Amino acid sequence: MKKIQLQRVAPAEIEERSMEIITQELGERTFPADQLPVIKRAIHTSADFDYADNLVFSTGAVEKGIAAIRGGCTIVTDTQMAFSGVNKRVLEKFGGKAVCFMSDPDVAAEAKARGETRATVSMERAAALPGPLILAIGNAPTALVRACELIEAGKMAPALVIGVPVGFVNVVESKELLLTMDTPHIVARGRKGGSNIAAAICNALIYQASNNARE
Amino acid sequence: MKKIQLQRVAPAEIEERSMEIITQELGERTFPADQLPVIKRAIHTSADFDYADNLVFSTGAVEKGIAAIRGGCTIVTDTQMAFSGVNKRVLEKFGGKAVCFMSDPDVAAEAKARGETRATVSMERAAALPGPLILAIGNAPTALVRACELIEAGKMAPALVIGVPVGFVNVVESKELLLTMDTPHIVARGRKGGSNIAAAICNALIYQASNNARE
Repeated sequence: MKKIQLQRVAPAEIEERSMEIITQELGERTFPADQLPVIKRAIHTSADFDYADNLVFSTGAVEKGIAAIRGGCTIVTDTQMAFSGVNKRVLEKFGGKAVCFMSDPDVAAEAKARGETRATVSMERAAALPGPLILAIGNAPTALVRACELIEAGKMAPALVIGVPVGFVNVVESKELLLTMDTPHIVARGRKGGSNIAAAICNALIYQASNNARE
Repeated sequence: MKKIQLQRVAPAEIEERSMEIITQELGERTFPADQLPVIKRAIHTSADFDYADNLVFSTGAVEKGIAAIRGGCTIVTDTQMAFSGVNKRVLEKFGGKAVCFMSDPDVAAEAKARGETRATVSMERAAALPGPLILAIGNAPTALVRACELIEAGKMAPALVIGVPVGFVNVVESKELLLTMDTPHIVARGRKGGSNIAAAICNALIYQASNNARE
């Protein structure tokens, strides 16, 4: 086995050091103070600096997301992966929780019967939840489109929609739709995004809500 | 709400159509037939065409991964996110399973006591498992380095190591270490990777193992 020279960094300091490197590489670019931790955490989870360019925030989106988390909101994800990635331990300190309906057998059955995606039906389940909501959509454009329709119809009023589905079919269009709406939103414009990005954005908000130094 | 023009694609066909678009955009580039579905699925999960360039396969790595899956191997992930993303339903048809030790309380306790990462201790747990193994490391370079040490010491002999941790501290070095080893490996060279990429590579192998047309 080749000998490699590893940096001696204590486990707890790895994230901090990573964020310092990201800051260095962002160089002279400046971002609004509340958005910066969101942008950095998206880069941290992907090593992809495109997120410095493609993330779009509606006015006050971060502030509204933080307020919703502090108010004990429910975060609804469109994948089990994003659900797994959300820091539920910190979220629960505020009385909040994360949920994902994608693996529920009744959601699958209804989707099949209607010829819809499970993601579409999941958003209808989300609309029936009480209390403040954050939608974290990192996979399915059909989830995002249905969420926009439910909002437009007055059936759902999320505090924040994190619209970061990834891919090649209807993904760009679904995000452009969200960008036209008054609902507070954070969008990764273009094809990129994903469950990891959705979870990273949730966590950036959760850590800001808890005044945690992690950024 | 703005009217947007969505492509009319049935839910089951969205993935197929996405893969067609990826094929088109890869253009004239050619890849070994067994590696292509792995490369395409990494791009599918990230919309990042860098994976056409940064994925490195040791000789026969895909074939060995497929054989391990068909033989009922255990896939060990280093995050709950990657675990969530692996298609366990198909894996279980071969008698295999996926596991992740990262949330086990005894792993956390031991890591804390020893000043190691949970990921390091997780790999030691993996080494104690019976039967063929695939390691799917999408997050922690410490997991990958410890896995390499255990392999070198003859304490573990995985059928395949998927080495795709993401990030900025010791990530590149950990992957370069794996690249020097004889153990079958698939590596995302450089900083990029992630739990989504680890799961996508597992699934590309699982679908090939089951002769599933999904690529």
